Amino acid sequence: MSDLNLEPLVSSGFSFAECARDGEARSCMLKTPRATIETPVFMPVGTQASVKSQTPDEVAATGARIVLANTYHLWLRPGAERVARLGGVQQFMGWPHALLTDSGGYQVFSLAKLRKIDDEGVAFRSHLSGEKKLLTPEESMRVQALLGSDIAMLLDECPAGGAERRVIEAAMKRTSAWARRSLASPSAAGQARFGIVQGGTHVDLRLAHLEDIASLPVDGVALGGFSVGEPIPEMYSALAELAPKMPRAKPRYLMGVGTPYDLLTAIGAGIDMFDCVLPTRNARNGQALTWNGRVNMKQARHSDDTTPLDVECGCPVCARFSRAYLRHLFNAEEMLGPRLLTQHNLWFYGELTRRAREAIRAGSYTSFAREASARMRERDEVKSPV
Amino acid sequence: MSDLNLEPLVSSGFSFAECARDGEARSCMLKTPRATIETPVFMPVGTQASVKSQTPDEVAATGARIVLANTYHLWLRPGAERVARLGGVQQFMGWPHALLTDSGGYQVFSLAKLRKIDDEGVAFRSHLSGEKKLLTPEESMRVQALLGSDIAMLLDECPAGGAERRVIEAAMKRTSAWARRSLASPSAAGQARFGIVQGGTHVDLRLAHLEDIASLPVDGVALGGFSVGEPIPEMYSALAELAPKMPRAKPRYLMGVGTPYDLLTAIGAGIDMFDCVLPTRNARNGQALTWNGRVNMKQARHSDDTTPLDVECGCPVCARFSRAYLRHLFNAEEMLGPRLLTQHNLWFYGELTRRAREAIRAGSYTSFAREASARMRERDEVKSPV
Repeated sequence: MSDLNLEPLVSSGFSFAECARDGEARSCMLKTPRATIETPVFMPVGTQASVKSQTPDEVAATGARIVLANTYHLWLRPGAERVARLGGVQQFMGWPHALLTDSGGYQVFSLAKLRKIDDEGVAFRSHLSGEKKLLTPEESMRVQALLGSDIAMLLDECPAGGAERRVIEAAMKRTSAWARRSLASPSAAGQARFGIVQGGTHVDLRLAHLEDIASLPVDGVALGGFSVGEPIPEMYSALAELAPKMPRAKPRYLMGVGTPYDLLTAIGAGIDMFDCVLPTRNARNGQALTWNGRVNMKQARHSDDTTPLDVECGCPVCARFSRAYLRHLFNAEEMLGPRLLTQHNLWFYGELTRRAREAIRAGSYTSFAREASARMRERDEVKSPV
Repeated sequence: MSDLNLEPLVSSGFSFAECARDGEARSCMLKTPRATIETPVFMPVGTQASVKSQTPDEVAATGARIVLANTYHLWLRPGAERVARLGGVQQFMGWPHALLTDSGGYQVFSLAKLRKIDDEGVAFRSHLSGEKKLLTPEESMRVQALLGSDIAMLLDECPAGGAERRVIEAAMKRTSAWARRSLASPSAAGQARFGIVQGGTHVDLRLAHLEDIASLPVDGVALGGFSVGEPIPEMYSALAELAPKMPRAKPRYLMGVGTPYDLLTAIGAGIDMFDCVLPTRNARNGQALTWNGRVNMKQARHSDDTTPLDVECGCPVCARFSRAYLRHLFNAEEMLGPRLLTQHNLWFYGELTRRAREAIRAGSYTSFAREASARMRERDEVKSPV
């Protein structure tokens, strides 16, 4: 793909182009000052400036050119000012490519103690030190500027899954007001800003909020508040209506999602960017993701299996180690087990999005996604709901 | 170094030569069916067929061509017969170089429950399953043959540190009888067998036992029962008397030792081979070993330090990451911290022995060891006894 069609986004140094389209699915190119990112893209999660157990080289080898770090965690430890003195998150962690930071809001809601939210922001106590802190839209932008990410997220209010319609409406209203305050606060050089759409699984609310957020001078539009406990079919049908109506000239990001099925479905609806702890967290629990569904490496049936985890996988783990050895590592609680499975799972997500881009360019995305999903479901080895 | 002077050891496929000598210190070459090993050499410990947190490639990159695995652990889990079916420990763990297995005795004494020792062997219950097991000299050789190591150790009785002289004498007697039974049991193709000398810090007992063990058709001679709680100067003075009297035509192995000072001292006395969990275990506790002594990466004073752990070190960790980042990883309990420090520490041990070999060849070992030790002691950053 050539860079010729790239159109500038709002923030200086960022540009974007849709390179191929297949139904609603699309493959785009996003340029940041530090990386060129082909979409659909999965962003590995490096919560505390570390993609758990992996070196930056290993993460890059999976094809990733952008990772996510959590503003809440880094703000509290080692501290945003310290990270800034040390050259920003990327310099700090030795990651030379692009970085996206969340606003900190989601973790304040899920981790902090004694939080109290009003129109000003969220007052909370650190879950580490007990220290009183106040997260406002302006503070989130200031902290993310110190962290030095390529892409900053505007602070939103994410209502709990299953919240009442009026609660969701109030959160939308507050999110809209906070988005305006965030955009009015000083912007950091070389940092793009993405707005977040709320509205639960109410399509009418989502569309109204999308219209508002899309009207702002943001570089990208994200969907927040999905995958928070709602039935998966409801998320899928909302996405099918919403994603095609998101701005075409800007990246579309579905936050915190998801499983391989979720990605295949959301890509089909026109989503460009994803992040999720699933591949890294499930790896630490012994669960591998493959083209043949999930595999639980802790099961005794692998004990004498000399075949690789996934015969179709080209990752360094599948090239070198047997299921029998991986099972032993988990059984013996050796750190190398979670490390190797994390590497495999990130490789799988990298390959899943790479093949999705290829299928979109070839005009065969629908059949690719249908066949891949069917095969994963059919052969899934884990006896639990997908 | 050319292979021309290599002399065959007892077991077929093994050969050995002293290539350089400087005082009592010496640099040798040991050839096994799977590797050529230059001594003095440090063998990283892969207790459960995994050098904790490291891939085989990373271990090999530190210069290691031989690692140690523990017979007791692998016998109990995943089981010696299983390891044999899977092609032996090296095939199982993806380590293409040489492997030494211990006899299992030491771990039976330190980990197993309800052990009962008599002349036949040691009866015990597995610390994992509670299963009753009997470790005899013959069983140890059988299990080590199944594990398929290059070098097997003959079962010995290692008395506790501080044991009475008569207890030590009884253990020597039993160790001698067990060594004979071990050597009388079937030998595995391509596997060398090393005998173990006991005797505590009693030089007269050690010399008597050395004479007995060295008289047997073993491929190498090891010193067991050191670094079990005795005062370090007592170990050093015993080594100074003992090591030079060990057979010159066979490898000399000091088991379970030790600190960088221990290695420098023992090499000076003429020891060739070492193993110890210190570099790997201390790494997991945040302690790095460097040419400037020990560094505790958990200390807050590293928080803003952009310099590498050791400016003189050529390892991938020192090339890529700052002390500030390493400190953050330990502070935030990220798995990458122990992983990176393990890699550094093994690199340091590899480099320590590499420089020792170089100094021996150059005839400057005494001054090299004195200067390195003095500098490490003087600059040691950890406030605890060395």
